[in-house]
Amino acid sequence: MNFTPLGNRVLVLPDEEETKTLSGIIVPESAKEKPLSGKVVAISNEVEIEISINDKILFGKYAGSSITLEGIDYLIMNIEDVLGVQ
Amino acid sequence: MNFTPLGNRVLVLPDEEETKTLSGIIVPESAKEKPLSGKVVAISNEVEIEISINDKILFGKYAGSSITLEGIDYLIMNIEDVLGVQ
Amino acid sequence: MNFTPLGNRVLVLPDEEETKTLSGIIVPESAKEKPLSGKVVAISNEVEIEISINDKILFGKYAGSSITLEGIDYLIMNIEDVLGVQ
Amino acid sequence: MNFTPLGNRVLVLPDEEETKTLSGIIVPESAKEKPLSGKVVAISNEVEIEISINDKILFGKYAGSSITLEGIDYLIMNIEDVLGVQ
Amino acid sequence: MNFTPLGNRVLVLPDEEETKTLSGIIVPESAKEKPLSGKVVAISNEVEIEISINDKILFGKYAGSSITLEGIDYLIMNIEDVLGVQ
Amino acid sequence: MNFTPLGNRVLVLPDEEETKTLSGIIVPESAKEKPLSGKVVAISNEVEIEISINDKILFGKYAGSSITLEGIDYLIMNIEDVLGVQ
Amino acid sequence: MNFTPLGNRVLVLPDEEETKTLSGIIVPESAKEKPLSGKVVAISNEVEIEISINDKILFGKYAGSSITLEGIDYLIMNIEDVLGVQ
Repeated sequence: MNFTPLGNRVLVLPDEEETKTLSGIIVPESAKEKPLSGKVVAISNEVEIEISINDKILFGKYAGSSITLEGIDYLIMNIEDVLGVQ
Repeated sequence: MNFTPLGNRVLVLPDEEETKTLSGIIVPESAKEKPLSGKVVAISNEVEIEISINDKILFGKYAGSSITLEGIDYLIMNIEDVLGVQ
Repeated sequence: MNFTPLGNRVLVLPDEEETKTLSGIIVPESAKEKPLSGKVVAISNEVEIEISINDKILFGKYAGSSITLEGIDYLIMNIEDVLGVQ
Repeated sequence: MNFTPLGNRVLVLPDEEETKTLSGIIVPESAKEKPLSGKVVAISNEVEIEISINDKILFGKYAGSSITLEGIDYLIMNIEDVLGVQ
Repeated sequence: MNFTPLGNRVLVLPDEEETKTLSGIIVPESAKEKPLSGKVVAISNEVEIEISINDKILFGKYAGSSITLEGIDYLIMNIEDVLGVQ
Repeated sequence: MNFTPLGNRVLVLPDEEETKTLSGIIVPESAKEKPLSGKVVAISNEVEIEISINDKILFGKYAGSSITLEGIDYLIMNIEDVLGVQ
Repeated sequence: MNFTPLGNRVLVLPDEEETKTLSGIIVPESAKEKPLSGKVVAISNEVEIEISINDKILFGKYAGSSITLEGIDYLIMNIEDVLGVQ
């Protein structure tokens, strides 16, 4: 993946949410909540906070904008919208 | 619990509210107010205010966002929303 | 009373308002206006303005948030909402 | 009068408005406009603008908050709401 | 005229607008637009921009507040609302 | 033209828009869009950006205020509303 | 193309979007989404972020204003609206 965020932004690969219930029934897309955790995949040079590639982060439901790179859906968000590192 | 807040945030374990009345009757969930006190469990490196792990803090009714880590409900809030330390 | 305000806040014990009229009739709670004066009982380390414990202060009708400590009702307010010292 | 304004505030004794018409008829209170001039009676230590006790000032119709000290009605206002000195 | 503006303000004597048409008919007050030019008559010590007493200035239609001193109507306005000097 | 802008402003002579179609029919005023380009004719001393008298600039449709000097219509606008120089 | 952006702006040539489907049917203009990627063609001297002419950038759907120079449609946008460089 070839992308460098600008400004105070990080690129995040959101975690896949569990789409099957215990009984194996597939929950339709529209019933899934937006992901709240993800993995940092790219960091702008301007970000001054201690955060590293591959950090697992938590973020609010409405943080970031969707961005599709090489067919994969990412979120690009301001570092200030990252609640913390797990 | 493995979580490091970012930004100007602290992670707070809100106090359990008394769910039984003196006569032992359980008050249903919806009748409980949101907690207003809690214990600091994690502090971002960026917080510059004197506050320590295990400090009992007070905060406004609408401070912070709910966050669930290993099955436990926490609040993550901006240090500026912490009214004081008890 | 064991409480240290954080941020730019002071803890204030609002003055009791006269609840009896001259003829001794008790005015019901709902007819009383919110207090506009009080006594400073705790000051955050971050407050840089000259103000001391026991100072009698005046403040606007909607300044501060109610906070109950050991059964006593206080107001916690931003020092900027304190109009002056009497 | 014993009161020290805090913050960027001054205490102002608003000028009495003419309550009698030339023919001597008293205009009822509700027909009077709010005062627009007054005398500075107390200045916060934080005010950095050249202004002195007893200066006659002009201010906008909605500047300041009413405050009653020893039975006299004053206005407490931010120095930035003082338009000028006469 | 005895008045010193405070803050970032200037006192302006707005230009009289032509109230007679060429044929000498007086246009009633309500048909006149608010003045857009005027003469600087007093400047606060805090104004740091190059502007002098008697400068003819232009300003927006809604700039400043009306102020009457010794029976003359002035405008007191923030220097930032002065568009330029003619 | 005798006018010096104040603040962060420039005075702009907006370009005449083509008012005739190829066939020579005059388009009525109301059908013309507001100009989006113009020539800088005066610059405030406070403008710190590299811009010169006679520069051809582009600006947004709603940038600036109309101002008439010696019968000519200009726009006075904040330098921040100037998109660029052609 | 002769244009120098001012302020914190860059001039962007938005990427042509695929206007034919696989079967070769032309999608009408109104069915196309606004471009989300483009090429930097001019940079203001005031931009302090590492970005170069010809960089391929991504930006939000509503970033920038349309600007037509020599018959070509560009976007002029604040560098802060550029999400990252590809």
